[in-house]
Amino acid sequence: MDRVKLSLNESFELANRCLLANGCNVDNAEAVAATILAAERDGCPSHGLFRLPGYVASLRSGKVDGNSSPRVERLAAGVVRVDAGGGYAPLALQIGRPALVEAAQVQGLAALALTNVHHFAALWIEVEALAREGLVAFAFTSYTPSVAPAGSGRPFFGTNPMAFAWPRRDASPMVFDQASAAMAKGEVMIAAREGHELPPGVGLDATGVSTTDPNAILDGGTMLPFGGYKGSSIALMVELLAGGLIGQAFSFEAGERDNKDGGPPRGGELLLAMDPEKFGDPSGWASHCELFFDRLEELDGARLPGSRRYRNREVTPHDGVWVPRSLHETIESLCST
Amino acid sequence: MDRVKLSLNESFELANRCLLANGCNVDNAEAVAATILAAERDGCPSHGLFRLPGYVASLRSGKVDGNSSPRVERLAAGVVRVDAGGGYAPLALQIGRPALVEAAQVQGLAALALTNVHHFAALWIEVEALAREGLVAFAFTSYTPSVAPAGSGRPFFGTNPMAFAWPRRDASPMVFDQASAAMAKGEVMIAAREGHELPPGVGLDATGVSTTDPNAILDGGTMLPFGGYKGSSIALMVELLAGGLIGQAFSFEAGERDNKDGGPPRGGELLLAMDPEKFGDPSGWASHCELFFDRLEELDGARLPGSRRYRNREVTPHDGVWVPRSLHETIESLCST
Repeated sequence: MDRVKLSLNESFELANRCLLANGCNVDNAEAVAATILAAERDGCPSHGLFRLPGYVASLRSGKVDGNSSPRVERLAAGVVRVDAGGGYAPLALQIGRPALVEAAQVQGLAALALTNVHHFAALWIEVEALAREGLVAFAFTSYTPSVAPAGSGRPFFGTNPMAFAWPRRDASPMVFDQASAAMAKGEVMIAAREGHELPPGVGLDATGVSTTDPNAILDGGTMLPFGGYKGSSIALMVELLAGGLIGQAFSFEAGERDNKDGGPPRGGELLLAMDPEKFGDPSGWASHCELFFDRLEELDGARLPGSRRYRNREVTPHDGVWVPRSLHETIESLCST
Repeated sequence: MDRVKLSLNESFELANRCLLANGCNVDNAEAVAATILAAERDGCPSHGLFRLPGYVASLRSGKVDGNSSPRVERLAAGVVRVDAGGGYAPLALQIGRPALVEAAQVQGLAALALTNVHHFAALWIEVEALAREGLVAFAFTSYTPSVAPAGSGRPFFGTNPMAFAWPRRDASPMVFDQASAAMAKGEVMIAAREGHELPPGVGLDATGVSTTDPNAILDGGTMLPFGGYKGSSIALMVELLAGGLIGQAFSFEAGERDNKDGGPPRGGELLLAMDPEKFGDPSGWASHCELFFDRLEELDGARLPGSRRYRNREVTPHDGVWVPRSLHETIESLCST
């Protein structure tokens, strides 16, 4: 494939310039560009510049407010809400994080309900940021229907990722971020774009038959949850936490209301944060967990979740970011409205 | 199979009598017998009377204190700890629940760290109880090594169940309780006892080769996580929450320390509870979620997790509990020490 090489800084500047040219204010553009940079830096192209045309589409359609001013309120001692005001998630998360961290440190644990938000990035970014403040963190968000509940053949759940991060004393946090779908939708979209087949078990075609063709899944078919009915239960839990609990849209509602401009629908996200200093083993938990990680990594074939991203993070500053030329041209054309 | 029919009351009385005869005080015996009753009532024999010989073994070996007096303390505004004092979980949960409920209602969310405990039952019992108090609830506990981390061929994680319950206004809570293993260990043990084959993907034999023979998995082999590396991540998360966070044993430590008497090892459990009245949609969340459940149940083939247990719960008071005759004889013999 014909590709263009960018430095990390160039990939940030490209995203930032494109967002500014399409109506984002400086704060929103920089926050979104930073999440795109983080994805490219960690070798996750499905959440990197690949998403920029979708961001731009939703600015141009007026669905997303690129000038949003997220508003922080306290709903209870342990519950912070950030109303993103119809903007993207990154700025709202950045503004809400200090209140969440402070509440978790005082109460032992706290929640952040992110409302009226358009989430189009990976969740590991926000849970890693919390773990770097010393907190255990969860994040949940839903999307629009693309995954069939176990036993059914029609999409109803979103890809519904759940992320979890664990702080470590002398190492980067242990982080996982996994879709409840058998495969992240971004990966299915990239397979379709690049003409790759998928492994079995990822989805059904429009007639409900299992398929390995990404286009058949995206065109009227459905993805499946990972791990059968257990992954389906996780997807259901994510709907309730990111939707029902905090008064935001379920995936089926987000799908019905969305203008289908290719950008992210409006929905909610729930974050939970816990301070391990407040759970009964303040002097011991960190080294105790290192012992656990050591034992796990001694097993042949086992590895800590997130370790591949951290390896990529060391390499990309030297190797740069490789962007498909067609995507790069699309983005450049979107910079001049 | 030759079976004995008991009424629900008879199954409770049998368990209670057997526990009293083996050194439990009245409070502990009744609490454990009630969880055994709940499992039999809901058609979950793998957590019912089938567990009683294991309970008795751990009383007779002195590993578990049948006279434990669980002690409740507050570690932070949102964090309750119940030190079970080396006893079984049911009494400690019963004693700790009011403090957890009160903290969650005040702070919006709260945690309960259950320490020095022997957990040998299903987790849906405790999360359902919290949901019946109007709270969203999570529970996590580890065990002893029986599940291989993704990519490896040796057991390291416990079966590591995670349970989740959602309160509903005019219906029983939506509850799921699922092992991170591809199958609950109790189910593998029952398949071994009854001579059934397992579906593929449940485990590896002692040489690391996939097998459908439950005995090959239990005798030196390993179970696998559900859903590949994603289920493995969930199992890892459970280890950290039920062990590292609250200063309790990881599964590998519990396994090393356990006396292998057939009863449950000593470990920890973490519960989280959230009050949906405090998350920003107090007047709307309940009916909004009913709309979601309705739409889900309208899909051909889909069903709410836990619905089969609720159906069994209606039937067993009339149909009774069917216990294998050999198990019944074993239990009766354990009643006379």
